[in-house]
Amino acid sequence: MPDQMETLTVNLGDRSYPIYIGHGLLTQRELIRPHLKSRQVCIVTNETIAPLYLDRLKSSLSDLQVQAVILPDGEKYKTLETVGMIYDSLLAQNFSRSSTLIALGGGVIGDMTGFAAATYQRGVNYIQIPTTLLAQVDSSVGGKTGVNRPLGKNMVGAFYQPQCVLADIATLDTLAERELKAGLAEVIKYGLINNADFYTWIEQNLALLLSRDGGALKHAILVSCAEKAKIVASDEREEGIRAILNLGHTFGHAIETATGYGSWLHGEAVATGMVMAADLSWRLGMLKKEEAGKIKKLITAAGLPVAPPNDIDVPTFLNLMGKDKKAEQGKIKFILLEAIGRARIEANVDLDLLSSSLRAGSDLAQ
Amino acid sequence: MPDQMETLTVNLGDRSYPIYIGHGLLTQRELIRPHLKSRQVCIVTNETIAPLYLDRLKSSLSDLQVQAVILPDGEKYKTLETVGMIYDSLLAQNFSRSSTLIALGGGVIGDMTGFAAATYQRGVNYIQIPTTLLAQVDSSVGGKTGVNRPLGKNMVGAFYQPQCVLADIATLDTLAERELKAGLAEVIKYGLINNADFYTWIEQNLALLLSRDGGALKHAILVSCAEKAKIVASDEREEGIRAILNLGHTFGHAIETATGYGSWLHGEAVATGMVMAADLSWRLGMLKKEEAGKIKKLITAAGLPVAPPNDIDVPTFLNLMGKDKKAEQGKIKFILLEAIGRARIEANVDLDLLSSSLRAGSDLAQ
Repeated sequence: MPDQMETLTVNLGDRSYPIYIGHGLLTQRELIRPHLKSRQVCIVTNETIAPLYLDRLKSSLSDLQVQAVILPDGEKYKTLETVGMIYDSLLAQNFSRSSTLIALGGGVIGDMTGFAAATYQRGVNYIQIPTTLLAQVDSSVGGKTGVNRPLGKNMVGAFYQPQCVLADIATLDTLAERELKAGLAEVIKYGLINNADFYTWIEQNLALLLSRDGGALKHAILVSCAEKAKIVASDEREEGIRAILNLGHTFGHAIETATGYGSWLHGEAVATGMVMAADLSWRLGMLKKEEAGKIKKLITAAGLPVAPPNDIDVPTFLNLMGKDKKAEQGKIKFILLEAIGRARIEANVDLDLLSSSLRAGSDLAQ
Repeated sequence: MPDQMETLTVNLGDRSYPIYIGHGLLTQRELIRPHLKSRQVCIVTNETIAPLYLDRLKSSLSDLQVQAVILPDGEKYKTLETVGMIYDSLLAQNFSRSSTLIALGGGVIGDMTGFAAATYQRGVNYIQIPTTLLAQVDSSVGGKTGVNRPLGKNMVGAFYQPQCVLADIATLDTLAERELKAGLAEVIKYGLINNADFYTWIEQNLALLLSRDGGALKHAILVSCAEKAKIVASDEREEGIRAILNLGHTFGHAIETATGYGSWLHGEAVATGMVMAADLSWRLGMLKKEEAGKIKKLITAAGLPVAPPNDIDVPTFLNLMGKDKKAEQGKIKFILLEAIGRARIEANVDLDLLSSSLRAGSDLAQ
């Protein structure tokens, strides 16, 4: 039943919230309405998304005091300065503590809007309407909000939960091919870390997913969000197990930082990072070579990159990874794989093996 | 026993923390040590305080990885850009999630350091060492952190509690006269809102306080912090009663915004704001004229201003007050006085009476 809406609850005590997944949710006013605290609603979106979906969303909020903030599009604008534009727009309209922000866009819009909501007048409500596959399966679940600094990605932020998330599959129709593939990287990640059956399902349904089949996408989003919600519910502030969600991210963030935010998409960097994590896991004797090969094969089939740029040398990689949030007092924490469907956190990685892995650029299965 | 340290606990469940009040606490390493999570400690201070107290504090942390960030001094630097300097310094030194920030300075340093701690890597520990009377009795208790925007003061921030507060009375020896008086404004506030006996004590001990008598200051700080802690414990996120701590602040913030941050000290603006709140309370038939007069008299005796600048006209005042965080959907919430020692929150104030009060500039007792 591809047209039926699914509801998934993220269980976080008094911060619990529903994720609605379905087709055409953007215009269903009864979904948003119960989550507002007052008539003041500010939609935060960007120049790419606004012409596509802003009017549609506004029309379902027509009886409220709605303003829109339209930001420039791209990871390089995920800064405090851009968040400042949201604050000032809210202040100019006298928006109070009971106002609600709505993030309409991808992960960058979600992260900045969430951070603005966490910090405007020390906290107002917000709602996520992610319009990319990556945001629907990743950044809209778990309450991580924030911005980048020149010295590191996502280094400033807050844990702050939305009132609800609307994952409208209809918005994926306009998603660029490259963005769709980048989202699939995170979908594959959930299979890799904790759900071998789902991983097999992705292998078998990759063509449907790439052709944007509504039913396949809904299933992928539902399972991905459920996997993430389960882990987040057990460790909201990433004091332990939640870190496994960062599979591929330590390598990936280094690639994003080294290449300048925005030239690689986040999902692309994570895709390569997962192949690198698989390579390292194999070199450590933790993962079978055959499984590492299967991972590289699926990520290749999804049209995603599997090796970092040649010009990032090993010292640069090590330095950038040492700045990652997962690093504790100089020790880099790696998320490694024991098998497809089983990730683990490992703080003690042999530096020589790590260097070999970085030099090899994950060429094991070529 | 003026030399004995007092310890007061702010009760906030798993976010409870102690306030240590005494003479010479800065160099007592055993106070700070139990509150650190790792060897990484970053002291945030300013150009005025650093030459006076930074080395002293550093010497008590000598076996740790200590760095200092020295910011420019003044309310006009309480911005996201300045907080960005803290983030970048932490990142440049690879400071991890287990590092601790120490705020060494007045309220501006405390607010910015607390906000940096709340948001660096989505939250690290911090310790407050307030070096002004105002910070010792006000901003170090209650977890309000944040920065200003051009359109409003403290409009961006987070509720975030420190691990502990060290109120070292010795640091008040170097405090400018004008700053000491500004701090007394907040001390008087605690008497006004909730403790008539303490108000009488202040009237009787004003000369001792102005001459920086250690025993009198310690008592004033202890009672002030206890009053604030009691209210904060019952309403951490200011959803109700906590707003009474804002007596004088709605008027005061308008004065600070209209005059540009920094030309009036916060305590001075609050002092005038309290006189204006008393005037309005009297005009509303809520407070006896005689008591309003007594308030104006004490604030005058403390060397604090009792009237706003002549050039802020009534429409400007109303507009600026409408932007205050206490405003809900255009309604300005006032903290008014029923008596000395009894404040209450009032959302329905007659606009004509308010305008008369603003025009009069609190001339009732002249």
